[in-house]
Amino acid sequence: MNAKLPSSVRIVEVGPRDGLQNEKQPIDTQTRVQLVNMLSDAGLKNIEAGSFVNPVWVPQMAGSEDVFSQIKRLDDVRYVALVPNIKGFERAISVGANEVAIFAAASEAFSKKNINCSIEESLDRFKPVMSAAKNLGIQVRCYVSCAISCPYEGAVAPQKVAEVSQRLLEMGVYEISLGDTVGTGTPADVSRMLEAVLKIAPVNKFAAHFHDTYGQALANIYASLQMGISVVDSSVAGLGGCPYAKGAAGNVATEDLVYMLNGLGIQHGVDLDKLISAGQFISGKLGRQSASKVALASAR
Amino acid sequence: MNAKLPSSVRIVEVGPRDGLQNEKQPIDTQTRVQLVNMLSDAGLKNIEAGSFVNPVWVPQMAGSEDVFSQIKRLDDVRYVALVPNIKGFERAISVGANEVAIFAAASEAFSKKNINCSIEESLDRFKPVMSAAKNLGIQVRCYVSCAISCPYEGAVAPQKVAEVSQRLLEMGVYEISLGDTVGTGTPADVSRMLEAVLKIAPVNKFAAHFHDTYGQALANIYASLQMGISVVDSSVAGLGGCPYAKGAAGNVATEDLVYMLNGLGIQHGVDLDKLISAGQFISGKLGRQSASKVALASAR
Repeated sequence: MNAKLPSSVRIVEVGPRDGLQNEKQPIDTQTRVQLVNMLSDAGLKNIEAGSFVNPVWVPQMAGSEDVFSQIKRLDDVRYVALVPNIKGFERAISVGANEVAIFAAASEAFSKKNINCSIEESLDRFKPVMSAAKNLGIQVRCYVSCAISCPYEGAVAPQKVAEVSQRLLEMGVYEISLGDTVGTGTPADVSRMLEAVLKIAPVNKFAAHFHDTYGQALANIYASLQMGISVVDSSVAGLGGCPYAKGAAGNVATEDLVYMLNGLGIQHGVDLDKLISAGQFISGKLGRQSASKVALASAR
Repeated sequence: MNAKLPSSVRIVEVGPRDGLQNEKQPIDTQTRVQLVNMLSDAGLKNIEAGSFVNPVWVPQMAGSEDVFSQIKRLDDVRYVALVPNIKGFERAISVGANEVAIFAAASEAFSKKNINCSIEESLDRFKPVMSAAKNLGIQVRCYVSCAISCPYEGAVAPQKVAEVSQRLLEMGVYEISLGDTVGTGTPADVSRMLEAVLKIAPVNKFAAHFHDTYGQALANIYASLQMGISVVDSSVAGLGGCPYAKGAAGNVATEDLVYMLNGLGIQHGVDLDKLISAGQFISGKLGRQSASKVALASAR
Protein backbone atom coordinates (compact mmCIF):
# COMPACT_ATOMS: atom_id res chain seq x y z
CA MET A 1 0.00 0.00 0.00
CA ASN A 2 0.92 3.66 -0.36
CA ALA A 3 4.03 2.75 -2.30
CA LYS A 4 4.14 6.16 -3.86
CA LEU A 5 3.76 8.37 -0.80
CA PRO A 6 6.61 10.88 -0.60
CA SER A 7 9.00 10.63 2.37
CA SER A 8 8.77 14.35 3.04
CA VAL A 9 6.43 17.20 2.19
CA ARG A 10 7.22 20.89 1.92
CA ILE A 11 4.32 22.86 3.36
CA VAL A 12 3.71 26.31 1.91
CA GLU A 13 1.88 28.30 4.57
CA VAL A 14 -0.50 30.71 2.87
CA GLY A 15 -2.54 31.81 5.89
CA PRO A 16 -1.04 35.31 6.22
CA ARG A 17 -1.91 36.01 2.57
CA ASP A 18 -4.53 33.76 0.94
CA GLY A 19 -6.13 33.20 4.32
CA LEU A 20 -6.30 36.70 5.73
CA GLN A 21 -7.20 38.33 2.42
CA ASN A 22 -10.40 36.29 2.41
CA GLU A 23 -11.35 37.10 5.99
CA LYS A 24 -13.93 39.84 6.33
CA GLN A 25 -12.11 41.67 9.09
CA PRO A 26 -8.97 43.57 8.30
CA ILE A 27 -6.06 42.66 10.54
CA ASP A 28 -3.52 45.20 11.74
CA THR A 29 0.11 45.06 10.69
CA GLN A 30 1.45 44.16 14.11
CA THR A 31 -0.82 41.11 14.29
CA ARG A 32 0.17 40.03 10.80
CA VAL A 33 3.85 40.36 11.72
CA GLN A 34 3.36 38.36 14.89
CA LEU A 35 1.48 35.65 13.00
CA VAL A 36 4.32 35.27 10.48
CA ASN A 37 6.85 35.14 13.31
CA MET A 38 4.87 32.45 15.14
CA LEU A 39 4.64 30.42 11.94
CA SER A 40 8.37 30.58 11.27
CA ASP A 41 8.99 29.70 14.90
CA ALA A 42 6.76 26.65 14.41
CA GLY A 43 9.14 25.44 11.72
CA LEU A 44 7.41 26.50 8.53
CA LYS A 45 10.03 27.25 5.89
CA ASN A 46 7.79 28.72 3.19
CA ILE A 47 5.47 31.46 4.33
CA GLU A 48 3.44 33.65 2.04
CA ALA A 49 3.57 36.78 4.12
CA GLY A 50 1.70 39.34 2.05
CA SER A 51 0.44 40.58 -1.28
CA PHE A 52 1.35 43.56 -3.43
CA VAL A 53 -1.89 43.71 -5.30
CA ASN A 54 -3.50 47.16 -5.33
CA PRO A 55 -5.24 47.61 -1.94
CA VAL A 56 -8.25 49.00 -3.77
CA TRP A 57 -8.92 45.39 -4.81
CA VAL A 58 -7.60 43.61 -1.74
CA PRO A 59 -7.78 46.00 1.22
CA GLN A 60 -6.87 43.26 3.71
CA MET A 61 -3.37 43.15 2.22
CA ALA A 62 -2.65 46.88 2.45
CA GLY A 63 0.55 47.50 4.38
CA SER A 64 2.32 44.37 3.20
CA GLU A 65 5.52 46.44 2.91
CA ASP A 66 5.35 47.00 6.65
CA VAL A 67 4.75 43.33 7.30
CA PHE A 68 7.80 42.33 5.28
CA SER A 69 9.90 45.06 6.88
CA GLN A 70 8.96 44.17 10.44
CA ILE A 71 8.98 40.38 10.53
CA LYS A 72 11.82 38.68 12.35
CA ARG A 73 13.75 37.01 9.55
CA LEU A 74 14.99 33.47 9.90
CA ASP A 75 17.75 32.54 7.45
CA ASP A 76 16.23 29.28 6.32
CA VAL A 77 12.71 30.62 5.74
CA ARG A 78 11.43 31.86 2.42
CA TYR A 79 9.05 34.78 2.83
CA VAL A 80 6.91 34.81 -0.29
CA ALA A 81 4.98 37.74 -1.76
CA LEU A 82 2.08 37.60 -4.16
CA VAL A 83 2.63 40.08 -6.99
CA PRO A 84 0.24 41.07 -9.79
CA ASN A 85 2.72 42.83 -12.08
CA ILE A 86 6.19 44.33 -12.33
CA LYS A 87 5.27 47.20 -10.06
CA GLY A 88 4.13 44.82 -7.35
CA PHE A 89 7.26 42.76 -7.92
CA GLU A 90 9.49 45.78 -7.38
CA ARG A 91 7.64 46.71 -4.20
CA ALA A 92 7.97 43.13 -2.91
CA ILE A 93 11.67 42.93 -3.66
CA SER A 94 12.33 46.34 -2.10
CA VAL A 95 11.16 44.96 1.24
CA GLY A 96 13.08 41.72 0.93
CA ALA A 97 10.62 39.12 -0.35
CA ASN A 98 12.67 35.96 -0.95
CA GLU A 99 10.34 34.58 -3.57
CA VAL A 100 7.33 35.83 -5.47
CA ALA A 101 4.11 34.19 -6.51
CA ILE A 102 2.16 35.14 -9.61
CA PHE A 103 -1.23 33.83 -10.65
CA ALA A 104 -3.15 32.60 -13.63
CA ALA A 105 -6.38 30.68 -14.14
CA ALA A 106 -7.27 27.54 -16.03
CA SER A 107 -10.66 29.02 -16.85
CA GLU A 108 -11.10 31.79 -19.42
CA ALA A 109 -14.29 32.96 -17.72
CA PHE A 110 -12.56 33.24 -14.35
CA SER A 111 -9.59 35.06 -15.86
CA LYS A 112 -11.91 37.56 -17.53
CA LYS A 113 -14.02 38.12 -14.42
CA ASN A 114 -11.16 38.13 -11.95
CA ILE A 115 -8.45 40.06 -13.75
CA ASN A 116 -10.28 41.31 -16.82
CA CYS A 117 -8.17 39.64 -19.48
CA SER A 118 -7.75 36.32 -21.23
CA ILE A 119 -5.46 33.65 -19.84
CA GLU A 120 -2.96 34.36 -22.60
CA GLU A 121 -3.00 38.08 -21.89
CA SER A 122 -2.55 37.39 -18.19
CA LEU A 123 0.55 35.34 -18.93
CA ASP A 124 1.94 38.09 -21.15
CA ARG A 125 1.53 40.58 -18.32
CA PHE A 126 3.84 38.50 -16.16
CA LYS A 127 6.69 38.37 -18.66
CA PRO A 128 8.35 41.51 -17.24
CA VAL A 129 8.13 39.94 -13.78
CA MET A 130 9.79 36.77 -15.06
CA SER A 131 12.63 38.77 -16.66
CA ALA A 132 13.20 40.91 -13.61
CA ALA A 133 13.10 37.90 -11.32
CA LYS A 134 15.59 36.04 -13.48
CA ASN A 135 17.97 38.99 -13.37
CA LEU A 136 17.80 39.08 -9.60
CA GLY A 137 17.92 35.32 -9.13
CA ILE A 138 14.47 35.31 -7.51
CA GLN A 139 12.37 32.18 -7.94
CA VAL A 140 8.80 32.57 -9.15
CA ARG A 141 5.92 30.34 -8.20
CA CYS A 142 2.55 30.48 -9.95
CA TYR A 143 -0.95 29.71 -8.74
CA VAL A 144 -3.25 28.20 -11.31
CA SER A 145 -6.77 28.94 -10.13
CA CYS A 146 -9.76 26.83 -11.09
CA ALA A 147 -7.66 23.72 -11.61
CA ILE A 148 -10.79 21.64 -10.92
CA SER A 149 -13.77 23.89 -11.49
CA CYS A 150 -14.70 27.48 -12.14
CA PRO A 151 -17.47 29.39 -10.37
CA TYR A 152 -18.64 30.66 -13.78
CA GLU A 153 -17.88 27.77 -16.16
CA GLY A 154 -18.26 24.71 -13.94
CA ALA A 155 -15.92 21.78 -14.49
CA VAL A 156 -12.55 22.66 -16.00
CA ALA A 157 -10.91 20.17 -18.37
CA PRO A 158 -7.71 18.64 -16.96
CA GLN A 159 -6.14 19.23 -20.37
CA LYS A 160 -6.69 22.98 -19.95
CA VAL A 161 -4.82 22.91 -16.64
CA ALA A 162 -1.99 21.04 -18.32
CA GLU A 163 -1.81 23.56 -21.17
CA VAL A 164 -1.64 26.57 -18.87
CA SER A 165 0.91 24.78 -16.71
CA GLN A 166 3.08 24.08 -19.73
CA ARG A 167 3.03 27.73 -20.76
CA LEU A 168 4.01 28.79 -17.26
CA LEU A 169 6.88 26.34 -17.08
CA GLU A 170 8.10 27.59 -20.43
CA MET A 171 8.02 31.11 -19.00
CA GLY A 172 10.31 29.96 -16.20
CA VAL A 173 8.18 29.50 -13.08
CA TYR A 174 9.80 26.90 -10.84
CA GLU A 175 6.61 25.58 -9.27
CA ILE A 176 2.93 25.54 -10.12
CA SER A 177 0.41 25.52 -7.32
CA LEU A 178 -2.71 23.81 -8.60
CA GLY A 179 -5.63 25.50 -6.93
CA ASP A 180 -9.05 24.02 -6.38
CA THR A 181 -10.30 27.55 -5.94
CA VAL A 182 -13.94 26.68 -5.45
CA GLY A 183 -13.16 23.54 -3.46
CA THR A 184 -15.54 21.34 -5.43
CA GLY A 185 -12.99 18.63 -6.20
CA THR A 186 -13.03 15.09 -4.92
CA PRO A 187 -10.13 12.62 -5.06
CA ALA A 188 -11.31 11.43 -8.49
CA ASP A 189 -11.27 14.95 -9.97
CA VAL A 190 -7.89 15.63 -8.44
CA SER A 191 -6.42 12.38 -9.72
CA ARG A 192 -7.67 13.06 -13.25
CA MET A 193 -6.27 16.58 -13.17
CA LEU A 194 -2.91 15.41 -11.86
CA GLU A 195 -2.71 12.67 -14.47
CA ALA A 196 -3.04 15.35 -17.15
CA VAL A 197 -0.42 17.71 -15.74
CA LEU A 198 2.04 14.92 -14.97
CA LYS A 199 2.13 14.21 -18.70
CA ILE A 200 3.75 17.58 -19.32
CA ALA A 201 6.20 17.87 -16.41
CA PRO A 202 7.67 15.94 -13.48
CA VAL A 203 5.73 15.81 -10.22
CA ASN A 204 8.21 18.03 -8.38
CA LYS A 205 7.00 20.97 -10.47
CA PHE A 206 3.56 20.90 -8.86
CA ALA A 207 1.99 21.78 -5.54
CA ALA A 208 -1.51 21.00 -4.25
CA HIS A 209 -3.57 23.99 -3.15
CA PHE A 210 -6.96 22.84 -2.00
CA HIS A 211 -9.83 24.67 -0.39
CA ASP A 212 -12.06 22.81 2.03
CA THR A 213 -15.38 24.27 0.88
CA TYR A 214 -16.98 20.83 0.64
CA GLY A 215 -14.81 19.13 3.24
CA GLN A 216 -12.79 17.25 0.63
CA ALA A 217 -9.39 18.92 1.01
CA LEU A 218 -7.56 16.34 3.11
CA ALA A 219 -8.89 13.44 1.07
CA ASN A 220 -7.75 15.30 -2.03
CA ILE A 221 -4.32 15.87 -0.54
CA TYR A 222 -4.08 12.20 0.33
CA ALA A 223 -4.93 11.32 -3.27
CA SER A 224 -2.28 13.83 -4.43
CA LEU A 225 0.38 12.36 -2.15
CA GLN A 226 -0.40 8.95 -3.58
CA MET A 227 0.44 10.39 -6.98
CA GLY A 228 3.75 11.74 -5.73
CA ILE A 229 2.90 15.35 -4.94
CA SER A 230 5.26 16.57 -2.21
CA VAL A 231 4.44 20.27 -1.91
CA VAL A 232 1.18 21.27 -0.25
CA ASP A 233 -0.26 24.73 0.43
CA SER A 234 -2.29 25.22 3.58
CA SER A 235 -3.49 27.92 5.90
CA VAL A 236 -3.08 27.96 9.67
CA ALA A 237 -6.46 27.70 11.45
CA GLY A 238 -8.02 27.18 8.01
CA LEU A 239 -7.96 30.95 7.55
CA GLY A 240 -9.93 32.36 4.67
CA GLY A 241 -13.26 31.56 3.20
CA CYS A 242 -14.74 31.06 -0.19
CA PRO A 243 -16.12 34.10 -1.99
CA TYR A 244 -18.29 31.77 -4.07
CA ALA A 245 -20.10 30.04 -1.20
CA LYS A 246 -21.28 32.06 1.77
CA GLY A 247 -20.23 30.64 5.11
CA ALA A 248 -17.99 28.06 3.50
CA ALA A 249 -14.60 26.93 4.69
CA GLY A 250 -11.30 28.32 3.47
CA ASN A 251 -7.97 26.69 2.73
CA VAL A 252 -7.25 23.35 4.28
CA ALA A 253 -6.00 23.95 7.83
CA THR A 254 -2.25 23.50 8.24
CA GLU A 255 -2.81 21.84 11.61
CA ASP A 256 -5.01 19.14 10.06
CA LEU A 257 -2.51 18.61 7.24
CA VAL A 258 0.40 18.28 9.68
CA TYR A 259 -1.62 15.82 11.76
CA MET A 260 -2.25 13.65 8.69
CA LEU A 261 1.38 13.82 7.59
CA ASN A 262 2.44 12.76 11.09
CA GLY A 263 0.16 9.76 10.85
CA LEU A 264 1.45 8.90 7.39
CA GLY A 265 5.04 9.07 8.63
CA ILE A 266 5.87 11.87 6.22
CA GLN A 267 8.50 14.41 7.32
CA HIS A 268 7.59 18.12 7.30
CA GLY A 269 9.59 19.85 10.04
CA VAL A 270 6.67 21.62 11.71
CA ASP A 271 6.05 21.64 15.47
CA LEU A 272 2.33 20.93 15.77
CA ASP A 273 1.93 22.47 19.23
CA LYS A 274 3.51 25.74 18.18
CA LEU A 275 1.44 25.71 15.01
CA ILE A 276 -1.75 25.27 17.03
CA SER A 277 -0.70 28.21 19.20
CA ALA A 278 -0.24 30.36 16.09
CA GLY A 279 -3.70 29.33 14.93
CA GLN A 280 -5.23 30.12 18.30
CA PHE A 281 -3.54 33.51 18.26
CA ILE A 282 -4.94 34.57 14.89
CA SER A 283 -8.37 33.01 15.54
CA GLY A 284 -8.55 35.03 18.74
CA LYS A 285 -7.68 38.21 16.85
CA LEU A 286 -10.38 37.45 14.30
CA GLY A 287 -12.82 36.66 17.09
CA ARG A 288 -13.80 33.39 15.53
CA GLN A 289 -13.36 29.71 16.15
CA SER A 290 -10.47 28.01 14.38
CA ALA A 291 -11.47 26.02 11.31
CA SER A 292 -8.91 23.37 12.23
CA LYS A 293 -10.47 20.29 13.78
CA VAL A 294 -7.10 19.33 15.22
CA ALA A 295 -6.96 22.71 16.96
CA LEU A 296 -10.49 22.30 18.32
CA ALA A 297 -9.85 18.76 19.52
CA SER A 298 -6.61 19.84 21.17
CA ALA A 299 -8.21 22.68 23.13
CA ARG A 300 -9.04 21.49 26.61
CA MET B 1 -5.80 4.57 -10.60
CA ASN B 2 -8.47 3.68 -8.05
CA ALA B 3 -8.77 0.21 -9.52
CA LYS B 4 -10.22 -1.12 -6.31
CA LEU B 5 -12.89 1.48 -5.60
CA PRO B 6 -16.28 -0.19 -5.14
CA SER B 7 -19.02 0.61 -7.67
CA SER B 8 -21.56 1.22 -4.92
CA VAL B 9 -21.53 1.97 -1.22
CA ARG B 10 -24.19 1.20 1.35
CA ILE B 11 -24.41 4.11 3.78
CA VAL B 12 -25.49 3.30 7.32
CA GLU B 13 -26.97 6.48 8.75
CA VAL B 14 -26.21 6.61 12.46
CA GLY B 15 -27.18 10.22 13.19
CA PRO B 16 -30.46 9.47 15.03
CA ARG B 17 -28.57 7.17 17.42
CA ASP B 18 -24.78 7.57 17.60
CA GLY B 19 -25.14 11.21 16.65
CA LEU B 20 -27.95 12.35 18.93
CA GLN B 21 -26.80 10.33 21.90
CA ASN B 22 -23.59 12.36 21.92
CA GLU B 23 -25.31 15.72 21.66
CA LYS B 24 -25.67 17.57 24.94
CA GLN B 25 -29.27 18.55 24.37
CA PRO B 26 -31.95 15.90 24.61
CA ILE B 27 -34.22 15.84 21.57
CA ASP B 28 -37.93 15.15 21.84
CA THR B 29 -39.48 12.05 20.34
CA GLN B 30 -41.41 13.90 17.66
CA THR B 31 -38.26 15.50 16.33
CA ARG B 32 -36.41 12.18 16.34
CA VAL B 33 -39.29 10.60 14.42
CA GLN B 34 -39.31 13.40 11.87
CA LEU B 35 -35.55 13.16 11.43
CA VAL B 36 -35.75 9.43 10.70
CA ASN B 37 -38.58 10.04 8.25
CA MET B 38 -36.63 12.74 6.44
CA LEU B 39 -33.63 10.44 6.21
CA SER B 40 -35.61 7.58 4.74
CA ASP B 41 -37.25 10.03 2.34
CA ALA B 42 -33.74 11.09 1.27
CA GLY B 43 -33.06 7.51 0.18
CA LEU B 44 -31.10 6.10 3.10
CA LYS B 45 -31.83 2.40 3.38
CA ASN B 46 -30.07 1.67 6.68
CA ILE B 47 -30.97 3.97 9.54
CA GLU B 48 -30.00 3.44 13.12
CA ALA B 49 -33.09 4.91 14.70
CA GLY B 50 -32.55 4.41 18.42
CA SER B 51 -30.91 2.60 21.29
CA PHE B 52 -32.27 0.29 23.97
CA VAL B 53 -29.49 0.89 26.44
CA ASN B 54 -30.70 1.80 29.92
CA PRO B 55 -31.65 5.51 29.83
CA VAL B 56 -29.80 5.95 33.11
CA TRP B 57 -26.63 5.62 31.02
CA VAL B 58 -27.82 7.24 27.83
CA PRO B 59 -30.68 9.61 28.64
CA GLN B 60 -30.72 11.02 25.09
CA MET B 61 -32.01 7.67 23.83
CA ALA B 62 -34.90 7.34 26.29
CA GLY B 63 -38.15 6.82 24.45
CA SER B 64 -36.65 4.85 21.57
CA GLU B 65 -39.72 2.58 21.70
CA ASP B 66 -41.82 5.58 20.78
CA VAL B 67 -39.47 6.53 17.97
CA PHE B 68 -39.68 3.05 16.45
CA SER B 69 -43.44 2.95 16.91
CA GLN B 70 -44.10 6.31 15.32
CA ILE B 71 -41.77 6.44 12.33
CA LYS B 72 -43.30 6.11 8.89
CA ARG B 73 -42.01 2.75 7.70
CA LEU B 74 -40.70 2.29 4.21
CA ASP B 75 -40.56 -1.31 3.05
CA ASP B 76 -37.05 -1.21 1.72
CA VAL B 77 -35.49 0.54 4.72
CA ARG B 78 -33.86 -1.25 7.60
CA TYR B 79 -34.45 0.51 10.90
CA VAL B 80 -31.64 -0.58 13.19
CA ALA B 81 -31.60 -0.56 16.99
CA LEU B 82 -28.57 -0.61 19.25
CA VAL B 83 -29.07 -3.19 22.00
CA PRO B 84 -26.87 -3.90 25.05
CA ASN B 85 -28.31 -7.27 26.06
CA ILE B 86 -31.22 -9.67 25.58
CA LYS B 87 -33.63 -7.37 27.41
CA GLY B 88 -32.78 -4.51 25.07
CA PHE B 89 -33.07 -6.88 22.14
CA GLU B 90 -36.57 -7.90 23.16
CA ARG B 91 -37.63 -4.29 23.58
CA ALA B 92 -36.22 -3.43 20.15
CA ILE B 93 -37.93 -6.35 18.44
CA SER B 94 -41.23 -5.61 20.16
CA VAL B 95 -41.35 -2.25 18.40
CA GLY B 96 -40.29 -3.63 15.04
CA ALA B 97 -36.55 -3.05 14.73
CA ASN B 98 -35.49 -4.73 11.47
CA GLU B 99 -31.93 -5.28 12.56
CA VAL B 100 -29.96 -4.90 15.76
CA ALA B 101 -26.48 -3.67 16.50
CA ILE B 102 -24.36 -4.84 19.38
CA PHE B 103 -21.00 -3.49 20.46
CA ALA B 104 -17.58 -4.58 21.61
CA ALA B 105 -14.21 -2.91 21.91
CA ALA B 106 -10.78 -3.77 20.64
CA SER B 107 -9.26 -2.32 23.81
CA GLU B 108 -9.47 -4.07 27.17
CA ALA B 109 -9.16 -0.79 29.04
CA PHE B 110 -12.03 0.74 27.08
CA SER B 111 -14.21 -2.33 27.58
CA LYS B 112 -13.59 -2.22 31.32
CA LYS B 113 -14.21 1.52 31.63
CA ASN B 114 -17.14 1.62 29.25
CA ILE B 115 -19.07 -1.52 30.11
CA ASN B 116 -17.23 -2.75 33.17
CA CYS B 117 -16.13 -6.13 31.82
CA SER B 118 -13.41 -7.69 29.71
CA ILE B 119 -13.80 -7.99 25.96
CA GLU B 120 -14.37 -11.74 26.33
CA GLU B 121 -17.06 -11.21 28.96
CA SER B 122 -18.71 -8.60 26.78
CA LEU B 123 -18.91 -11.09 23.93
CA ASP B 124 -20.38 -13.74 26.23
CA ARG B 125 -23.11 -11.33 27.28
CA PHE B 126 -24.23 -11.05 23.69
CA LYS B 127 -24.62 -14.79 23.12
CA PRO B 128 -28.29 -14.78 24.20
CA VAL B 129 -28.89 -11.94 21.74
CA MET B 130 -27.25 -13.91 18.95
CA SER B 131 -29.41 -16.97 19.69
CA ALA B 132 -32.63 -15.01 19.92
CA ALA B 133 -31.81 -13.11 16.74
CA LYS B 134 -31.06 -16.32 14.88
CA ASN B 135 -34.40 -17.80 15.95
CA LEU B 136 -36.21 -14.74 14.66
CA GLY B 137 -34.15 -14.36 11.50
CA ILE B 138 -32.86 -10.96 12.60
CA GLN B 139 -29.45 -9.92 11.38
CA VAL B 140 -26.96 -8.61 13.90
CA ARG B 141 -24.29 -6.04 13.25
CA CYS B 142 -21.51 -5.27 15.70
CA TYR B 143 -19.52 -2.12 16.38
CA VAL B 144 -15.93 -2.63 17.34
CA SER B 145 -14.88 0.49 19.22
CA CYS B 146 -11.29 1.67 19.46
CA ALA B 147 -10.33 0.00 16.20
CA ILE B 148 -7.50 2.54 15.85
CA SER B 149 -6.86 3.93 19.32
CA CYS B 150 -8.23 3.95 22.82
CA PRO B 151 -8.68 7.00 25.03
CA TYR B 152 -7.07 5.07 27.88
CA GLU B 153 -4.53 2.80 26.18
CA GLY B 154 -3.45 4.82 23.14
CA ALA B 155 -2.75 2.99 19.90
CA VAL B 156 -4.58 -0.32 19.46
CA ALA B 157 -2.81 -3.15 17.63
CA PRO B 158 -4.45 -4.05 14.30
CA GLN B 159 -4.07 -7.70 15.30
CA LYS B 160 -6.31 -7.10 18.31
CA VAL B 161 -9.03 -5.69 16.05
CA ALA B 162 -8.70 -8.74 13.83
CA GLU B 163 -8.98 -11.13 16.80
CA VAL B 164 -12.11 -9.49 18.18
CA SER B 165 -13.60 -9.39 14.68
CA GLN B 166 -12.95 -13.08 14.20
CA ARG B 167 -14.69 -13.93 17.46
CA LEU B 168 -17.69 -11.83 16.46
CA LEU B 169 -17.96 -13.44 13.05
CA GLU B 170 -17.80 -16.86 14.70
CA MET B 171 -20.68 -15.75 16.94
CA GLY B 172 -22.72 -14.99 13.83
CA VAL B 173 -22.70 -11.23 13.33
CA TYR B 174 -23.14 -10.44 9.65
CA GLU B 175 -21.20 -7.19 9.61
CA ILE B 176 -18.55 -5.54 11.74
CA SER B 177 -18.42 -1.79 11.90
CA LEU B 178 -14.85 -0.79 12.61
CA GLY B 179 -15.00 2.32 14.76
CA ASP B 180 -12.30 4.92 15.08
CA THR B 181 -14.00 5.99 18.29
CA VAL B 182 -11.51 8.68 19.25
CA GLY B 183 -11.00 9.78 15.66
CA THR B 184 -7.21 9.80 15.88
CA GLY B 185 -6.65 7.64 12.79
CA THR B 186 -5.03 8.73 9.56
CA PRO B 187 -5.13 6.84 6.27
CA ALA B 188 -1.96 4.95 7.24
CA ASP B 189 -3.48 3.70 10.51
CA VAL B 190 -6.69 2.76 8.77
CA SER B 191 -4.88 0.90 6.00
CA ARG B 192 -2.81 -1.07 8.50
CA MET B 193 -5.90 -1.96 10.53
CA LEU B 194 -7.82 -3.03 7.44
CA GLU B 195 -4.91 -5.13 6.21
CA ALA B 196 -5.09 -7.06 9.49
CA VAL B 197 -8.83 -7.66 9.48
CA LEU B 198 -8.93 -8.56 5.80
CA LYS B 199 -6.69 -11.51 6.61
CA ILE B 200 -9.47 -13.05 8.67
CA ALA B 201 -12.57 -12.35 6.56
CA PRO B 202 -13.67 -10.95 3.19
CA VAL B 203 -14.04 -7.21 2.81
CA ASN B 204 -17.85 -7.37 2.60
CA LYS B 205 -17.95 -8.29 6.28
CA PHE B 206 -16.64 -4.87 7.32
CA ALA B 207 -17.90 -1.32 7.53
CA ALA B 208 -15.97 1.89 8.16
CA HIS B 209 -17.16 3.99 11.10
CA PHE B 210 -14.98 7.04 11.45
CA HIS B 211 -15.22 10.07 13.68
CA ASP B 212 -13.93 13.38 12.43
CA THR B 213 -12.29 14.54 15.66
CA TYR B 214 -9.05 15.43 13.88
CA GLY B 215 -10.58 16.11 10.47
CA GLN B 216 -9.30 12.86 9.00
CA ALA B 217 -12.56 10.98 8.46
CA LEU B 218 -13.08 11.52 4.74
CA ALA B 219 -9.43 10.82 3.93
CA ASN B 220 -9.75 7.65 6.00
CA ILE B 221 -12.90 6.65 4.16
CA TYR B 222 -11.18 7.24 0.84
CA ALA B 223 -8.32 5.00 1.97
CA SER B 224 -10.90 2.38 3.04
CA LEU B 225 -12.70 2.51 -0.30
CA GLN B 226 -9.37 1.95 -2.01
CA MET B 227 -9.10 -1.25 0.01
CA GLY B 228 -12.55 -2.40 -1.08
CA ILE B 229 -14.70 -1.31 1.85
CA SER B 230 -18.23 -0.69 0.57
CA VAL B 231 -20.24 -0.02 3.73
CA VAL B 232 -19.73 3.31 5.50
CA ASP B 233 -21.39 4.66 8.64
CA SER B 234 -22.04 8.39 8.82
CA SER B 235 -24.17 10.91 10.63
CA VAL B 236 -26.32 13.58 9.00
CA ALA B 237 -25.03 17.08 9.80
CA GLY B 238 -22.07 15.41 11.50
CA LEU B 239 -24.25 14.94 14.57
CA GLY B 240 -22.54 13.90 17.75
CA GLY B 241 -19.31 14.87 19.38
CA CYS B 242 -16.43 13.16 21.04
CA PRO B 243 -16.62 12.55 24.79
CA TYR B 244 -12.81 12.36 24.85
CA ALA B 245 -12.09 15.75 23.31
CA LYS B 246 -14.12 18.77 24.32
CA GLY B 247 -15.51 20.75 21.40
CA ALA B 248 -14.42 18.11 18.91
CA ALA B 249 -16.33 16.94 15.86
CA GLY B 250 -18.58 13.89 15.76
CA ASN B 251 -19.16 11.25 13.12
CA VAL B 252 -18.26 12.09 9.57
CA ALA B 253 -21.14 14.05 8.04
CA THR B 254 -23.31 12.03 5.68
CA GLU B 255 -23.61 15.04 3.36
CA ASP B 256 -19.83 15.26 2.96
CA LEU B 257 -19.58 11.51 2.38
CA VAL B 258 -22.32 11.59 -0.25
CA TYR B 259 -20.61 14.50 -1.96
CA MET B 260 -17.35 12.56 -2.15
CA LEU B 261 -19.07 9.41 -3.40
CA ASN B 262 -20.78 11.49 -6.10
CA GLY B 263 -17.41 12.78 -7.21
CA LEU B 264 -15.93 9.30 -7.19
CA GLY B 265 -18.79 8.00 -9.32
CA ILE B 266 -19.84 5.54 -6.63
CA GLN B 267 -23.55 4.72 -6.39
CA HIS B 268 -25.32 5.21 -3.04
CA GLY B 269 -28.98 6.04 -3.73
CA VAL B 270 -29.19 9.15 -1.57
CA ASP B 271 -30.69 12.45 -2.68
CA LEU B 272 -28.18 15.05 -1.50
CA ASP B 273 -30.64 17.95 -1.44
CA LYS B 274 -33.12 16.06 0.74
CA LEU B 275 -30.28 14.92 2.96
CA ILE B 276 -29.11 18.50 3.42
CA SER B 277 -32.66 19.46 4.35
CA ALA B 278 -32.76 16.73 6.98
CA GLY B 279 -29.45 18.01 8.36
CA GLN B 280 -30.72 21.59 8.44
CA PHE B 281 -33.84 20.44 10.25
CA ILE B 282 -31.99 18.69 13.06
CA SER B 283 -29.28 21.36 13.29
CA GLY B 284 -32.04 23.92 13.76
CA LYS B 285 -33.62 21.85 16.51
CA LEU B 286 -30.25 21.58 18.24
CA GLY B 287 -29.69 25.28 17.79
CA ARG B 288 -26.27 24.78 16.31
CA GLN B 289 -24.54 25.05 13.00
CA SER B 290 -24.31 21.89 10.93
CA ALA B 291 -20.93 20.17 11.05
CA SER B 292 -21.25 19.31 7.36
CA LYS B 293 -19.14 21.55 5.15
CA VAL B 294 -21.27 20.58 2.17
CA ALA B 295 -24.34 21.78 4.07
CA LEU B 296 -22.66 25.06 4.98
CA ALA B 297 -21.41 25.66 1.45
CA SER B 298 -24.86 24.88 0.03
CA ALA B 299 -26.67 27.34 2.31
CA ARG B 300 -27.16 30.63 0.50
